[in-house]
Amino acid sequence: MKILFHTPQANEADHWLPSLARALPVAHIRAWEPGDVADADYALVWRPPRELFARRAGLKAIFNLGAGVDALLSLEREAPGTLPHGVPIVRLEDTGMAAQMAEYTTYAVLRYMRRFDEYELAQRQADPSWRELAPHARETFTVGVLGLGALGAHVAQALASLGLPVRGYSRSDKTLEGVETFSGEANLDAFLDGLKVLVNLLPSTPDTDGILNRRTFAKVARGAYLVNLARGAHVVEADLLDALAQGQIAAATLDVFATEPLPPDHRLWREPRVTVTPHIAALTLREPAIAQIAQKIAALERGEPIGGIVDPVRGY
Amino acid sequence: MKILFHTPQANEADHWLPSLARALPVAHIRAWEPGDVADADYALVWRPPRELFARRAGLKAIFNLGAGVDALLSLEREAPGTLPHGVPIVRLEDTGMAAQMAEYTTYAVLRYMRRFDEYELAQRQADPSWRELAPHARETFTVGVLGLGALGAHVAQALASLGLPVRGYSRSDKTLEGVETFSGEANLDAFLDGLKVLVNLLPSTPDTDGILNRRTFAKVARGAYLVNLARGAHVVEADLLDALAQGQIAAATLDVFATEPLPPDHRLWREPRVTVTPHIAALTLREPAIAQIAQKIAALERGEPIGGIVDPVRGY
Repeated sequence: MKILFHTPQANEADHWLPSLARALPVAHIRAWEPGDVADADYALVWRPPRELFARRAGLKAIFNLGAGVDALLSLEREAPGTLPHGVPIVRLEDTGMAAQMAEYTTYAVLRYMRRFDEYELAQRQADPSWRELAPHARETFTVGVLGLGALGAHVAQALASLGLPVRGYSRSDKTLEGVETFSGEANLDAFLDGLKVLVNLLPSTPDTDGILNRRTFAKVARGAYLVNLARGAHVVEADLLDALAQGQIAAATLDVFATEPLPPDHRLWREPRVTVTPHIAALTLREPAIAQIAQKIAALERGEPIGGIVDPVRGY
Repeated sequence: MKILFHTPQANEADHWLPSLARALPVAHIRAWEPGDVADADYALVWRPPRELFARRAGLKAIFNLGAGVDALLSLEREAPGTLPHGVPIVRLEDTGMAAQMAEYTTYAVLRYMRRFDEYELAQRQADPSWRELAPHARETFTVGVLGLGALGAHVAQALASLGLPVRGYSRSDKTLEGVETFSGEANLDAFLDGLKVLVNLLPSTPDTDGILNRRTFAKVARGAYLVNLARGAHVVEADLLDALAQGQIAAATLDVFATEPLPPDHRLWREPRVTVTPHIAALTLREPAIAQIAQKIAALERGEPIGGIVDPVRGY
């Protein structure tokens, strides 16, 4: 069995290959390099270049080393035929990512509810101010989670366990204990109406890209907070900057950006009410990811079905 | 029935008195003013002046409008005989304070575990840096809670529910599900040994004041974090500044200070790894506090026992 590995980070292969070799002792595993068109049964990739897929009709599956497959599918959207026809794309299912997303969101939501961000600003002034701010009332600090996949559903329930009112929005109907769910575009406005915090965990697809726009920001409560943990493509940055300037959005915590790394001179770094983190909300944990991939390869080799296969039309 | 009311904040009485009147319709309630030595059955006070207690032998109880009675008891320690002999001192039992303390601590602990404080510093630099930092591993990010009263016990269990290893320390033996408990001074070192985060929720008494000192900081893990939500008197500030300078304590979140408001020129405002909040970790919520006091006064009038009576020797 031959396995190709690729991530854009130069030294990642040094960490992954020895662990993969231990988990898949019968496989020959190599880091893909430009020009490598030799045979392979499986490709394990994160943000691969188009060339990696040249003459790859023999692949049995493509494993995406993360939860979001938008980078992979956009290769095909931009140049149909890039991805080998009929080869299943498999994305990582929860490998500790849901717990990490819940930690990040819990942190960001409590920070805004208790106004810790404003205390930080008060402290960092030249003349620091000791002044009590009325916290938002927990009972009416309604949080809406866009996207109720494995990550969004877990996040929504973690927030509900804090005693906050939580709504969830997904494309198709879902039921989730402790969460008021909405589905379909016709119900998006009802979901957004009066939200105090909007958390985005949608997959990035042509349908969802740009969903965090002027119109959306106008529907939530005045002075609402935005937490974007999904993809930069979901945000219309100019609309967000306007909404912040007008106070319609009071503050935003952003982990993802249209361009990553966020360029050092980008305005978002310097907005006082914008918190930037470098795409760290949920890191792919190498060991559980490798264990999951090894199990799925073993199942495919035995001809058994596996979970996590992407629907390329739906986009996730 | 006659009730005296006092807080140091000038306009607090305007908010409390109408609500108290509704909860205790048979009572005559007045805001105490200097020189007022007229009869009273009950005193409802927060940080009262010594003079308020002159000729108060007729009081049936003194209600402290907060969880910590250190200010009240220190009046008596500094000038024995200040408080009327044998009059019970009643402190507020949980009126939403435990939930607020748990929110604050959850926020502060997640912030340090996921290194959000360092991302904030990276963002606020003139040349912001996009750099992933390895988070602390949840499984070994051991948090120790000093004090297992109503507040400490609730906080310890909230932290345990995040999947963190949690230890608790109290004067007398306690058992708490999901928390490794230690009691008595002889076991303080074992409790502190290797902690990644130290959270203080002790009452302030002559025994506990100064407990956050050089010796204590030396016992926790190098680069540990401190969260102080109890009283400024617990901290030896010079020792904390030294421990921060040496990196023995990586960062601290402080809600309470030896002098409050923290003076604008105080060094703690300007330490880059110190987060200051203006004693807001748990606010006394007026309506539940009033409901609790009204119930207790009714019970006392019927000659029934009530909870929350302070042991002046123990100090809480």
